[in-house]
Amino acid sequence: MEKPEVKRLLINYKTLEEFQNFREYGAPELSMKEDLQANIIENDSESPFYGIYYGNKLVARMSLYRVKGKFDQYFEPPQDYLELFKLEVLEAYQNKGYGKALVDFAKSFNLPIKTNARQRSDEFWNKMDFESVTYQPMRDRGENPYVWYPEGVKEQVLSQEQR
Amino acid sequence: MEKPEVKRLLINYKTLEEFQNFREYGAPELSMKEDLQANIIENDSESPFYGIYYGNKLVARMSLYRVKGKFDQYFEPPQDYLELFKLEVLEAYQNKGYGKALVDFAKSFNLPIKTNARQRSDEFWNKMDFESVTYQPMRDRGENPYVWYPEGVKEQVLSQEQR
Repeated sequence: MEKPEVKRLLINYKTLEEFQNFREYGAPELSMKEDLQANIIENDSESPFYGIYYGNKLVARMSLYRVKGKFDQYFEPPQDYLELFKLEVLEAYQNKGYGKALVDFAKSFNLPIKTNARQRSDEFWNKMDFESVTYQPMRDRGENPYVWYPEGVKEQVLSQEQR
Repeated sequence: MEKPEVKRLLINYKTLEEFQNFREYGAPELSMKEDLQANIIENDSESPFYGIYYGNKLVARMSLYRVKGKFDQYFEPPQDYLELFKLEVLEAYQNKGYGKALVDFAKSFNLPIKTNARQRSDEFWNKMDFESVTYQPMRDRGENPYVWYPEGVKEQVLSQEQR
């Protein structure tokens, strides 16, 4: 099978229209829409979203956000890391390696990655070599955090107050 | 219809078994399980979970976590607030007012409430008198935050760095 190509998505009305096919459509998408309507951002500027097209159709996507080291509560030593969210493959296109292609792309930055494993997706994240972290109620607030450690990085131990 | 009774759930193996019927089963539940297995917590001690029973069956639940005012990035004036998560009603018991009963219970503390509206549940949250907040990528990281303001509380305006 040909390796799926991951593209950085452009902020424009076409991308927004494609996003409506995904289940997790919410604040980030609406924020993008408002920005476009208010012309705050240039049409076709780059978004934090990456995706895979099948022909002209967007069939998989994720968002990657770089969090600054001083806000890092997951990794030791504390450092800039990537928060990965809204990873989703349209149902008809699942089990074709598109999810893995997106995750491999995220890993290519060689920064630690944190995500929130939703709805019993643990098996997928384990296959991607992600690990669950010790659940800390104050920090994680109901999330199901999974992380990927590049070489030399490990889990951060939090102070009592941060937990 | 009789008003559904909201109960604070006990941390024990029966509660854990009930939790497996819910779609969102993850880190908080597994953490509870580990604690029980390690006998760190007393069996039957109180959890952050509240629920509604239909006969002996747990059919709806939510978790409420009190966040300290110094971590508040949502409300003005900054203050202790409730983070509401894992609100879920088993499919066969939906549209009977159980979700509303849980939310009304959360409101009864008269603290601001913040939640993350998932999978296009905006309509439900609007009905509950929750409002969406201005999306801030750094703070919200892909979430779809909805809040409930008690009298005299409004949206917090963040500094550039916090956004």
